[in-house]
Amino acid sequence: MAASRRLRVETQSRTQFVPLAARIRAEAGALLSGDGLLHVSVPHTTAGVCVNEGYDPDVMADVGRVLERLVPWKADYRHAEGNSAAHVKTILVGSSVSLPVRGGAIELGQWQEIFLCEFDGPRSRTVIVTMAASP
Amino acid sequence: MAASRRLRVETQSRTQFVPLAARIRAEAGALLSGDGLLHVSVPHTTAGVCVNEGYDPDVMADVGRVLERLVPWKADYRHAEGNSAAHVKTILVGSSVSLPVRGGAIELGQWQEIFLCEFDGPRSRTVIVTMAASP
Amino acid sequence: MAASRRLRVETQSRTQFVPLAARIRAEAGALLSGDGLLHVSVPHTTAGVCVNEGYDPDVMADVGRVLERLVPWKADYRHAEGNSAAHVKTILVGSSVSLPVRGGAIELGQWQEIFLCEFDGPRSRTVIVTMAASP
Repeated sequence: MAASRRLRVETQSRTQFVPLAARIRAEAGALLSGDGLLHVSVPHTTAGVCVNEGYDPDVMADVGRVLERLVPWKADYRHAEGNSAAHVKTILVGSSVSLPVRGGAIELGQWQEIFLCEFDGPRSRTVIVTMAASP
Repeated sequence: MAASRRLRVETQSRTQFVPLAARIRAEAGALLSGDGLLHVSVPHTTAGVCVNEGYDPDVMADVGRVLERLVPWKADYRHAEGNSAAHVKTILVGSSVSLPVRGGAIELGQWQEIFLCEFDGPRSRTVIVTMAASP
Repeated sequence: MAASRRLRVETQSRTQFVPLAARIRAEAGALLSGDGLLHVSVPHTTAGVCVNEGYDPDVMADVGRVLERLVPWKADYRHAEGNSAAHVKTILVGSSVSLPVRGGAIELGQWQEIFLCEFDGPRSRTVIVTMAASP
Protein backbone atom coordinates (compact mmCIF):
# COMPACT_ATOMS: atom_id res chain seq x y z
CA MET A 1 0.00 0.00 0.00
CA ALA A 2 1.33 3.40 -0.89
CA ALA A 3 1.77 5.72 2.07
CA SER A 4 0.43 8.82 0.33
CA ARG A 5 -2.16 9.91 -2.20
CA ARG A 6 -2.41 12.97 -4.43
CA LEU A 7 -5.62 14.85 -5.12
CA ARG A 8 -6.12 17.38 -7.89
CA VAL A 9 -8.06 20.59 -7.18
CA GLU A 10 -9.01 23.14 -9.83
CA THR A 11 -9.62 26.55 -8.28
CA GLN A 12 -11.85 29.22 -9.84
CA SER A 13 -10.90 32.53 -8.28
CA ARG A 14 -7.91 34.35 -6.83
CA THR A 15 -8.89 33.64 -3.24
CA GLN A 16 -10.85 30.47 -2.58
CA PHE A 17 -11.19 27.98 0.27
CA VAL A 18 -11.92 24.48 -1.02
CA PRO A 19 -13.22 21.84 1.47
CA LEU A 20 -11.13 18.66 1.33
CA ALA A 21 -12.34 16.26 4.04
CA ALA A 22 -14.94 14.40 1.97
CA ARG A 23 -12.52 14.03 -0.94
CA ILE A 24 -9.76 12.79 1.37
CA ARG A 25 -12.09 10.15 2.81
CA ALA A 26 -13.23 9.12 -0.70
CA GLU A 27 -9.91 9.19 -2.56
CA ALA A 28 -7.35 8.58 0.19
CA GLY A 29 -9.45 6.49 2.56
CA ALA A 30 -7.14 3.49 2.10
CA LEU A 31 -4.47 5.42 4.02
CA LEU A 32 -6.75 5.89 7.03
CA SER A 33 -6.22 2.74 9.05
CA GLY A 34 -5.40 2.37 12.72
CA ASP A 35 -4.09 5.24 14.82
CA GLY A 36 -1.73 8.04 13.90
CA LEU A 37 -1.59 11.37 12.14
CA LEU A 38 -3.11 12.48 8.86
CA HIS A 39 -0.94 15.04 7.07
CA VAL A 40 -2.42 17.20 4.32
CA SER A 41 -0.01 19.41 2.38
CA VAL A 42 0.45 21.29 -0.87
CA PRO A 43 3.67 21.47 -2.92
CA HIS A 44 2.90 25.12 -3.77
CA THR A 45 4.07 28.53 -2.51
CA THR A 46 0.94 30.61 -3.18
CA ALA A 47 -1.66 28.22 -1.74
CA GLY A 48 -1.84 26.69 1.74
CA VAL A 49 -3.93 24.40 3.91
CA CYS A 50 -5.89 25.21 7.07
CA VAL A 51 -8.50 23.76 9.38
CA ASN A 52 -11.50 25.86 10.38
CA GLU A 53 -15.28 26.09 10.23
CA GLY A 54 -16.94 24.34 7.31
CA TYR A 55 -20.56 24.95 8.33
CA ASP A 56 -21.19 28.66 7.65
CA PRO A 57 -19.35 29.81 4.51
CA ASP A 58 -19.39 33.38 5.88
CA VAL A 59 -16.60 32.37 8.27
CA MET A 60 -14.04 31.62 5.57
CA ALA A 61 -15.30 34.61 3.54
CA ASP A 62 -14.50 36.80 6.57
CA VAL A 63 -11.09 35.09 6.84
CA GLY A 64 -10.37 35.92 3.20
CA ARG A 65 -11.32 39.57 3.69
CA VAL A 66 -9.22 39.99 6.84
CA LEU A 67 -6.20 38.44 5.11
CA GLU A 68 -6.72 40.79 2.14
CA ARG A 69 -6.84 43.78 4.49
CA LEU A 70 -3.67 42.67 6.31
CA VAL A 71 -1.79 41.73 3.14
CA PRO A 72 -3.22 43.71 0.19
CA TRP A 73 -2.67 42.39 -3.31
CA LYS A 74 -1.13 45.67 -4.45
CA ALA A 75 1.53 47.26 -2.28
CA ASP A 76 5.21 48.10 -2.39
CA TYR A 77 6.43 44.57 -3.20
CA ARG A 78 9.70 43.82 -5.03
CA HIS A 79 8.97 40.30 -6.32
CA ALA A 80 8.51 40.88 -10.06
CA GLU A 81 5.78 38.27 -10.51
CA GLY A 82 3.34 40.52 -8.63
CA ASN A 83 1.92 37.85 -6.32
CA SER A 84 3.89 38.49 -3.13
CA ALA A 85 0.65 38.86 -1.18
CA ALA A 86 -0.20 35.24 -2.00
CA HIS A 87 3.20 34.09 -0.71
CA VAL A 88 2.75 36.00 2.55
CA LYS A 89 -0.78 34.68 3.10
CA THR A 90 0.46 31.13 2.46
CA ILE A 91 3.12 31.54 5.16
CA LEU A 92 0.56 32.96 7.62
CA VAL A 93 -1.84 30.06 7.01
CA GLY A 94 0.78 27.35 6.53
CA SER A 95 1.49 24.77 3.82
CA SER A 96 0.17 21.76 5.72
CA VAL A 97 -2.02 20.58 8.57
CA SER A 98 -1.92 17.43 10.70
CA LEU A 99 -4.92 15.80 12.34
CA PRO A 100 -5.26 12.82 14.68
CA VAL A 101 -6.53 9.56 13.23
CA ARG A 102 -8.13 7.05 15.59
CA GLY A 103 -9.36 3.65 14.46
CA GLY A 104 -9.11 4.78 10.86
CA ALA A 105 -11.26 7.91 11.37
CA ILE A 106 -10.02 11.50 11.07
CA GLU A 107 -10.63 13.22 14.42
CA LEU A 108 -12.18 16.39 13.05
CA GLY A 109 -14.24 18.45 15.47
CA GLN A 110 -17.94 18.99 14.87
CA TRP A 111 -17.42 22.28 13.03
CA GLN A 112 -13.98 21.60 11.56
CA GLU A 113 -13.26 21.25 7.86
CA ILE A 114 -9.90 20.95 6.06
CA PHE A 115 -9.48 23.67 3.43
CA LEU A 116 -7.13 24.15 0.52
CA CYS A 117 -6.46 27.90 0.68
CA GLU A 118 -6.01 29.33 -2.81
CA PHE A 119 -4.41 32.79 -2.80
CA ASP A 120 -3.31 33.13 -6.44
CA GLY A 121 -5.97 31.34 -8.49
CA PRO A 122 -7.47 30.21 -10.63
CA ARG A 123 -4.95 27.38 -10.86
CA SER A 124 -4.65 23.62 -10.90
CA ARG A 125 -3.44 22.51 -7.46
CA THR A 126 -2.12 19.29 -5.95
CA VAL A 127 -2.93 18.11 -2.42
CA ILE A 128 -0.69 15.42 -0.89
CA VAL A 129 -2.25 13.21 1.79
CA THR A 130 0.15 11.21 3.98
CA MET A 131 -0.36 9.02 7.05
CA ALA A 132 2.08 8.59 9.94
CA ALA A 133 1.57 5.74 12.41
CA SER A 134 1.35 5.81 16.17
CA PRO A 135 3.78 3.48 17.96
CA MET B 1 -2.18 1.20 24.75
CA ALA B 2 -4.28 3.92 23.22
CA ALA B 3 -2.40 6.15 20.79
CA SER B 4 -4.01 9.39 21.96
CA ARG B 5 -5.29 11.09 25.08
CA ARG B 6 -7.80 13.90 25.60
CA LEU B 7 -7.37 16.69 28.12
CA ARG B 8 -10.10 19.05 29.25
CA VAL B 9 -9.34 22.76 29.68
CA GLU B 10 -11.78 25.29 31.14
CA THR B 11 -10.92 28.81 30.00
CA GLN B 12 -11.86 31.94 31.94
CA SER B 13 -11.66 34.86 29.52
CA ARG B 14 -12.18 35.67 25.86
CA THR B 15 -8.47 35.58 25.07
CA GLN B 16 -6.30 33.29 27.19
CA PHE B 17 -3.14 31.26 26.70
CA VAL B 18 -3.15 28.12 28.86
CA PRO B 19 0.15 26.24 29.39
CA LEU B 20 -0.18 22.54 28.54
CA ALA B 21 3.25 20.89 28.81
CA ALA B 22 3.03 19.85 32.47
CA ARG B 23 -0.49 18.49 32.02
CA ILE B 24 0.55 16.57 28.88
CA ARG B 25 3.42 14.96 30.78
CA ALA B 26 1.13 14.14 33.72
CA GLU B 27 -1.97 12.97 31.88
CA ALA B 28 -0.62 11.72 28.55
CA GLY B 29 2.84 10.61 29.67
CA ALA B 30 2.08 7.01 28.75
CA LEU B 31 2.13 8.07 25.08
CA LEU B 32 5.64 9.48 25.38
CA SER B 33 7.84 6.47 24.76
CA GLY B 34 10.75 6.10 22.38
CA ASP B 35 11.35 8.50 19.49
CA GLY B 36 8.89 10.29 17.27
CA LEU B 37 6.55 13.25 17.16
CA LEU B 38 4.14 14.59 19.74
CA HIS B 39 1.06 16.15 18.17
CA VAL B 40 -1.16 18.48 20.20
CA SER B 41 -4.40 19.63 18.58
CA VAL B 42 -7.83 21.01 19.32
CA PRO B 43 -11.10 19.98 17.62
CA HIS B 44 -12.30 23.60 17.75
CA THR B 45 -12.48 26.49 15.28
CA THR B 46 -12.12 29.46 17.68
CA ALA B 47 -9.18 28.17 19.72
CA GLY B 48 -5.75 27.04 18.55
CA VAL B 49 -2.42 25.72 19.78
CA CYS B 50 0.99 27.36 19.65
CA VAL B 51 4.50 27.03 21.05
CA ASN B 52 6.23 30.08 22.51
CA GLU B 53 7.73 31.53 25.66
CA GLY B 54 6.36 30.23 28.96
CA TYR B 55 8.70 32.09 31.30
CA ASP B 56 7.56 35.75 31.20
CA PRO B 57 3.76 35.98 30.91
CA ASP B 58 4.19 39.45 29.37
CA VAL B 59 5.24 37.74 26.12
CA MET B 60 1.92 36.00 25.52
CA ALA B 61 0.06 39.08 26.81
CA ASP B 62 1.83 41.08 24.08
CA VAL B 63 0.93 38.37 21.55
CA GLY B 64 -2.72 38.66 22.53
CA ARG B 65 -2.69 42.44 22.15
CA VAL B 66 -0.99 42.36 18.74
CA LEU B 67 -3.50 39.77 17.48
CA GLU B 68 -6.36 41.95 18.77
CA ARG B 69 -4.92 44.96 16.94
CA LEU B 70 -4.52 43.00 13.69
CA VAL B 71 -7.90 41.26 13.94
CA PRO B 72 -10.25 43.40 16.08
CA TRP B 73 -13.24 41.74 17.69
CA LYS B 74 -15.64 44.21 16.13
CA ALA B 75 -15.30 44.99 12.43
CA ASP B 76 -17.23 44.55 9.21
CA TYR B 77 -17.72 40.76 9.51
CA ARG B 78 -20.57 38.83 7.90
CA HIS B 79 -20.59 35.69 10.06
CA ALA B 80 -23.75 36.11 12.13
CA GLU B 81 -22.34 34.53 15.30
CA GLY B 82 -20.11 37.60 15.79
CA ASN B 83 -16.89 35.72 16.54
CA SER B 84 -15.15 35.89 13.15
CA ALA B 85 -12.10 37.45 14.79
CA ALA B 86 -11.62 34.28 16.84
CA HIS B 87 -11.78 32.15 13.68
CA VAL B 88 -9.16 34.32 11.93
CA LYS B 89 -6.82 34.29 14.94
CA THR B 90 -7.15 30.50 15.13
CA ILE B 91 -6.09 30.19 11.50
CA LEU B 92 -3.12 32.54 12.03
CA VAL B 93 -1.95 30.57 15.08
CA GLY B 94 -2.91 27.10 13.84
CA SER B 95 -5.02 24.27 15.25
CA SER B 96 -2.10 22.01 16.19
CA VAL B 97 1.62 21.83 16.89
CA SER B 98 4.11 18.99 16.57
CA LEU B 99 7.22 18.55 18.69
CA PRO B 100 10.07 16.02 18.57
CA VAL B 101 10.10 13.27 21.20
CA ARG B 102 13.42 11.60 22.00
CA GLY B 103 13.75 8.75 24.45
CA GLY B 104 10.26 9.49 25.73
CA ALA B 105 10.96 13.18 26.45
CA ILE B 106 9.36 16.13 24.65
CA GLU B 107 12.16 18.16 23.07
CA LEU B 108 10.96 21.58 24.21
CA GLY B 109 13.51 24.37 24.19
CA GLN B 110 14.51 26.06 27.43
CA TRP B 111 11.96 28.86 27.07
CA GLN B 112 9.32 26.98 25.11
CA GLU B 113 5.85 26.16 26.41
CA ILE B 114 2.86 24.62 24.60
CA PHE B 115 -0.21 26.85 24.83
CA LEU B 116 -3.88 26.32 24.21
CA CYS B 117 -4.87 29.65 22.59
CA GLU B 118 -8.42 30.59 23.58
CA PHE B 119 -9.90 33.32 21.37
CA ASP B 120 -13.61 33.01 22.17
CA GLY B 121 -13.80 32.09 25.84
CA PRO B 122 -14.74 31.35 28.42
CA ARG B 123 -15.42 27.84 27.17
CA SER B 124 -14.77 24.20 27.92
CA ARG B 125 -12.08 23.01 25.49
CA THR B 126 -10.64 19.65 24.49
CA VAL B 127 -6.97 19.05 23.71
CA ILE B 128 -6.03 15.88 21.80
CA VAL B 129 -2.53 14.51 22.33
CA THR B 130 -1.26 11.98 19.79
CA MET B 131 2.11 10.30 19.25
CA ALA B 132 3.62 9.28 15.91
CA ALA B 133 6.61 6.94 15.86
CA SER B 134 9.95 7.34 14.16
CA PRO B 135 10.95 4.45 11.85
CA MET C 1 20.00 4.75 14.04
CA ALA C 2 19.00 7.90 15.87
CA ALA C 3 15.58 9.21 14.92
CA SER C 4 16.59 12.87 14.84
CA ARG C 5 19.49 15.13 13.91
CA ARG C 6 20.42 18.65 15.03
CA LEU C 7 21.81 21.30 12.69
CA ARG C 8 23.48 24.51 13.82
CA VAL C 9 22.69 27.78 12.01
CA GLU C 10 24.48 31.07 12.68
CA THR C 11 22.32 34.01 11.61
CA GLN C 12 23.73 37.39 10.61
CA SER C 13 20.89 39.91 10.90
CA ARG C 14 17.77 40.59 12.92
CA THR C 15 15.46 39.21 10.24
CA GLN C 16 16.83 36.49 7.99
CA PHE C 17 15.44 33.49 6.13
CA VAL C 18 18.00 30.69 5.89
CA PRO C 19 17.41 27.86 3.35
CA LEU C 20 17.65 24.45 5.01
CA ALA C 21 16.72 21.75 2.47
CA ALA C 22 20.23 21.12 1.10
CA ARG C 23 21.69 20.98 4.60
CA ILE C 24 18.95 18.61 5.77
CA ARG C 25 19.68 16.27 2.86
CA ALA C 26 23.44 16.47 3.52
CA GLU C 27 23.47 16.27 7.32
CA ALA C 28 20.26 14.40 8.16
CA GLY C 29 19.94 12.30 5.01
CA ALA C 30 20.28 9.09 7.04
CA LEU C 31 16.85 9.83 8.53
CA LEU C 32 15.21 9.99 5.10
CA SER C 33 14.37 6.39 4.36
CA GLY C 34 11.08 4.91 3.22
CA ASP C 35 7.79 6.76 3.52
CA GLY C 36 6.56 9.13 6.20
CA LEU C 37 6.85 12.68 7.42
CA LEU C 38 9.88 14.91 7.81
CA HIS C 39 9.54 17.29 10.74
CA VAL C 40 11.76 20.37 10.98
CA SER C 41 11.55 22.41 14.18
CA VAL C 42 13.42 24.91 16.32
CA PRO C 43 13.63 24.91 20.14
CA HIS C 44 13.48 28.73 20.14
CA THR C 45 10.77 31.33 20.77
CA THR C 46 12.03 34.17 18.51
CA ALA C 47 12.77 32.11 15.38
CA GLY C 48 10.48 29.83 13.41
CA VAL C 49 10.37 27.57 10.37
CA CYS C 50 8.35 27.96 7.17
CA VAL C 51 8.08 26.58 3.66
CA ASN C 52 7.89 28.96 0.72
CA GLU C 53 9.64 30.06 -2.47
CA GLY C 54 13.38 29.54 -2.60
CA TYR C 55 13.96 30.66 -6.18
CA ASP C 56 13.56 34.45 -6.14
CA PRO C 57 14.96 35.92 -2.89
CA ASP C 58 12.66 38.94 -3.38
CA VAL C 59 9.76 36.75 -2.21
CA MET C 60 11.11 36.19 1.29
CA ALA C 61 12.37 39.79 1.41
CA ASP C 62 8.77 40.90 0.76
CA VAL C 63 7.58 38.48 3.47
CA GLY C 64 10.01 40.01 5.94
CA ARG C 65 8.83 43.54 5.12
CA VAL C 66 5.13 42.66 5.42
CA LEU C 67 5.72 40.98 8.79
CA GLU C 68 7.64 44.07 9.96
CA ARG C 69 4.74 46.30 8.89
CA LEU C 70 2.18 44.10 10.67
CA VAL C 71 4.30 43.61 13.80
CA PRO C 72 6.72 46.55 14.16
CA TRP C 73 9.82 46.09 16.27
CA LYS C 74 8.99 49.11 18.39
CA ALA C 75 5.48 49.48 19.75
CA ASP C 76 3.63 49.46 23.05
CA TYR C 77 4.94 46.09 24.26
CA ARG C 78 5.26 45.12 27.94
CA HIS C 79 7.84 42.30 27.71
CA ALA C 80 10.95 43.91 29.20
CA GLU C 81 13.41 42.18 26.86
CA GLY C 82 12.17 44.35 23.99
CA ASN C 83 11.78 41.57 21.42
CA SER C 84 8.05 40.91 21.61
CA ALA C 85 7.74 41.47 17.87
CA ALA C 86 10.01 38.47 17.27
CA HIS C 87 7.81 36.31 19.51
CA VAL C 88 4.65 37.36 17.64
CA LYS C 89 6.22 36.76 14.21
CA THR C 90 7.37 33.31 15.37
CA ILE C 91 3.82 32.40 16.36
CA LEU C 92 2.43 33.67 13.03
CA VAL C 93 4.98 31.64 11.04
CA GLY C 94 5.11 28.61 13.35
CA SER C 95 7.90 26.75 15.14
CA SER C 96 7.92 23.72 12.85
CA VAL C 97 6.92 22.35 9.46
CA SER C 98 6.17 18.82 8.28
CA LEU C 99 6.69 17.54 4.75
CA PRO C 100 5.88 14.20 3.10
CA VAL C 101 8.76 11.79 2.48
CA ARG C 102 8.35 9.17 -0.24
CA GLY C 103 10.96 6.55 -0.98
CA GLY C 104 13.46 8.50 1.09
CA ALA C 105 12.95 11.78 -0.80
CA ILE C 106 11.45 14.97 0.66
CA GLU C 107 8.38 15.83 -1.41
CA LEU C 108 9.13 19.53 -1.85
CA GLY C 109 7.36 21.29 -4.70
CA GLN C 110 9.35 22.77 -7.56
CA TRP C 111 9.55 26.24 -5.98
CA GLN C 112 9.45 25.20 -2.32
CA GLU C 113 12.30 25.67 0.12
CA ILE C 114 12.41 25.10 3.90
CA PHE C 115 13.50 28.25 5.75
CA LEU C 116 14.71 28.92 9.26
CA CYS C 117 13.01 32.26 10.02
CA GLU C 118 15.23 34.41 12.23
CA PHE C 119 13.37 37.31 13.85
CA ASP C 120 15.80 38.32 16.61
CA GLY C 121 19.28 37.76 15.18
CA PRO C 122 22.09 37.57 14.90
CA ARG C 123 22.10 34.40 16.99
CA SER C 124 23.25 30.82 17.01
CA ARG C 125 20.23 28.64 16.28
CA THR C 126 19.46 24.91 16.45
CA VAL C 127 17.28 23.08 13.93
CA ILE C 128 15.90 19.66 14.92
CA VAL C 129 15.11 17.23 12.09
CA THR C 130 12.89 14.25 12.96
CA MET C 131 11.30 11.52 10.84
CA ALA C 132 7.95 9.83 11.50
CA ALA C 133 7.09 6.63 9.64
CA SER C 134 4.06 5.76 7.61
CA PRO C 135 2.25 2.57 8.67
